[in-house]
Amino acid sequence: MKIAVDAMGGDYAPGVVMQAVSELLQEKDQQNIQILLVGHLEKLSYYLEKYNLQPSPRLELVHAETVVEMSDLSTAAIRSKKNSSITVCAGLVAEGRADGVVSAGHTGAAVAASTVKMRMAKGVDRPCLATVMPRAGGYGNWVLADAGANPDCSPMNLAQFAIMGEIYAKVALGRTNPTIGLLSVGGEDCKGNDLTKEAFKILSRMPINFVGNVEGHDTFTGECDVVICDGFVGNTVLKSSESLAKATVQWLKEAFTRNAFRKAGALLAKEAFAELKKHGDFEEYGGAPLMGLNGVCIIGHGVSTPKAIKNAIRVAHQFVEQKTPENVSSRIFECGVEKGAFAAHMHS
Amino acid sequence: MKIAVDAMGGDYAPGVVMQAVSELLQEKDQQNIQILLVGHLEKLSYYLEKYNLQPSPRLELVHAETVVEMSDLSTAAIRSKKNSSITVCAGLVAEGRADGVVSAGHTGAAVAASTVKMRMAKGVDRPCLATVMPRAGGYGNWVLADAGANPDCSPMNLAQFAIMGEIYAKVALGRTNPTIGLLSVGGEDCKGNDLTKEAFKILSRMPINFVGNVEGHDTFTGECDVVICDGFVGNTVLKSSESLAKATVQWLKEAFTRNAFRKAGALLAKEAFAELKKHGDFEEYGGAPLMGLNGVCIIGHGVSTPKAIKNAIRVAHQFVEQKTPENVSSRIFECGVEKGAFAAHMHS
Repeated sequence: MKIAVDAMGGDYAPGVVMQAVSELLQEKDQQNIQILLVGHLEKLSYYLEKYNLQPSPRLELVHAETVVEMSDLSTAAIRSKKNSSITVCAGLVAEGRADGVVSAGHTGAAVAASTVKMRMAKGVDRPCLATVMPRAGGYGNWVLADAGANPDCSPMNLAQFAIMGEIYAKVALGRTNPTIGLLSVGGEDCKGNDLTKEAFKILSRMPINFVGNVEGHDTFTGECDVVICDGFVGNTVLKSSESLAKATVQWLKEAFTRNAFRKAGALLAKEAFAELKKHGDFEEYGGAPLMGLNGVCIIGHGVSTPKAIKNAIRVAHQFVEQKTPENVSSRIFECGVEKGAFAAHMHS
Repeated sequence: MKIAVDAMGGDYAPGVVMQAVSELLQEKDQQNIQILLVGHLEKLSYYLEKYNLQPSPRLELVHAETVVEMSDLSTAAIRSKKNSSITVCAGLVAEGRADGVVSAGHTGAAVAASTVKMRMAKGVDRPCLATVMPRAGGYGNWVLADAGANPDCSPMNLAQFAIMGEIYAKVALGRTNPTIGLLSVGGEDCKGNDLTKEAFKILSRMPINFVGNVEGHDTFTGECDVVICDGFVGNTVLKSSESLAKATVQWLKEAFTRNAFRKAGALLAKEAFAELKKHGDFEEYGGAPLMGLNGVCIIGHGVSTPKAIKNAIRVAHQFVEQKTPENVSSRIFECGVEKGAFAAHMHS
């Protein structure tokens, strides 16, 4: 089992990635994971020494001349930076030299490079970024899919995302028969935009646990295991939620430092803040899988900690072991929503 | 100045609406507002007596046989319930018997009834629901437009929403030259979906303070005064944010009641929670205006308090006084994005 790790990807790369790899290689229960560490070897040398990382049967070093910076445009970067660390990583999977990729770098570039190099799994039209989101109220966390890989989607894309979300909810949340909702502007069947109205028809006929439309109110406080939407909406929900969470932390700080009483209260309840913070802390899930490809690709958050990167590598390992790409493909055929099946759906 | 008030609209109607009207009529500085209270007169009789509301030069009672329930579908309800309170309200404006409408009832029904009865202002294609949202970090609150009136939009719709958002930011937030951003999946000009890419081109050429694309991260913690998007995205951002805020309150409660220390801390900092709550409290703004119509329509939140409804009536009054519908129309022509101008834009 070989996982290609993008050493250059992420806000604190390469340091944080090198630390993660170093820690993982020392763990007893991860002996069957081999790492292909991909980056500019000269730039990595300081960290290779610092973390005592030597090439070994469990660690191979692969040179990549460039890196896609956060300020780069994804598609342009993939075209112009052919030797970037993420492109080299995806290429290793395409060539069969690695089983999966982990990167905490530029999401758009990871999507573009993985799609171009690995190509779509059989029957899949577009890859889907799936991510675990928090929830209050006892129904456990939920999966958002697509969280941002596809700004423009067809109804069939959404139908396929339902499958990928279903499979991810099984793997990440342990749900046996995940409920799947279509994100819309109202709970009734007829509500939505042109895209969701068409997608609703297809989803209704699939042998999945489809619960119909859900709306914004049903996300962080709802019941549904998987929420399906196009990548524009998903990216907006994800990022505006992160923005609101950040704003709330700031409001809390302001409110709890206004006078001595409140400061004392904050001190007494210090652990409550730590507990609150954990709800937004997803290093356990180790990033978001880009699903629907001929291979495994796990994309970490830009500000990933070593723990988050280690968990991303573990998730990649799990996906390879459980043959997730193959499962997506066969489930899509099972549900009759494989590439090209749209015409059949329209006339049945 | 006559404002038609939907007595039956809202989760706590008619009681809360009647209380609001009663209080408003007693206020010295609102002597120039006349109220047309619209609802089922028999059902209102208890409250008319309770709040000592008698027909007077400042209060006219108008009977409406039915009410659109929250569970009704908006368009179907408007067709089948021709004598619903919201339809009667909108009709009063259309007939020139009232200058504006206030309703805290079914948003979809209010949009449908107002659009059908009042019709679009000259040059406007679709109405836009504009709403004030909170923000941390010192840049003040921001306007989201469209917050949910149009699930499917054209690029020209978004261009017109920019004008309506601009005007609302001036009225509600007191901005002199509001910055306007296009909600997208990345800050760079070329990022977005097909809709926003086309809208970007039109917005760039308009004589407005357009700052380009903004993304989810730029909402609750950003700098932009007005954020433009289609109503599907706007509704989703609005409702998922409300859901996250609700979840956060629940997490806070759980975290601060875990043990005696934390409970004591919470008690000491009691006012901090009250302060925090205020960030999500928009009764000051009195609801969201549905802009772009031949007349004023202010839609209150379903759970509006008497204070929120009084403020919605004040906002309606302000909109009529400032000739907001006429301003939207003339500014749209000024910016060259009036109905039918699309072809010209495409070829210039």
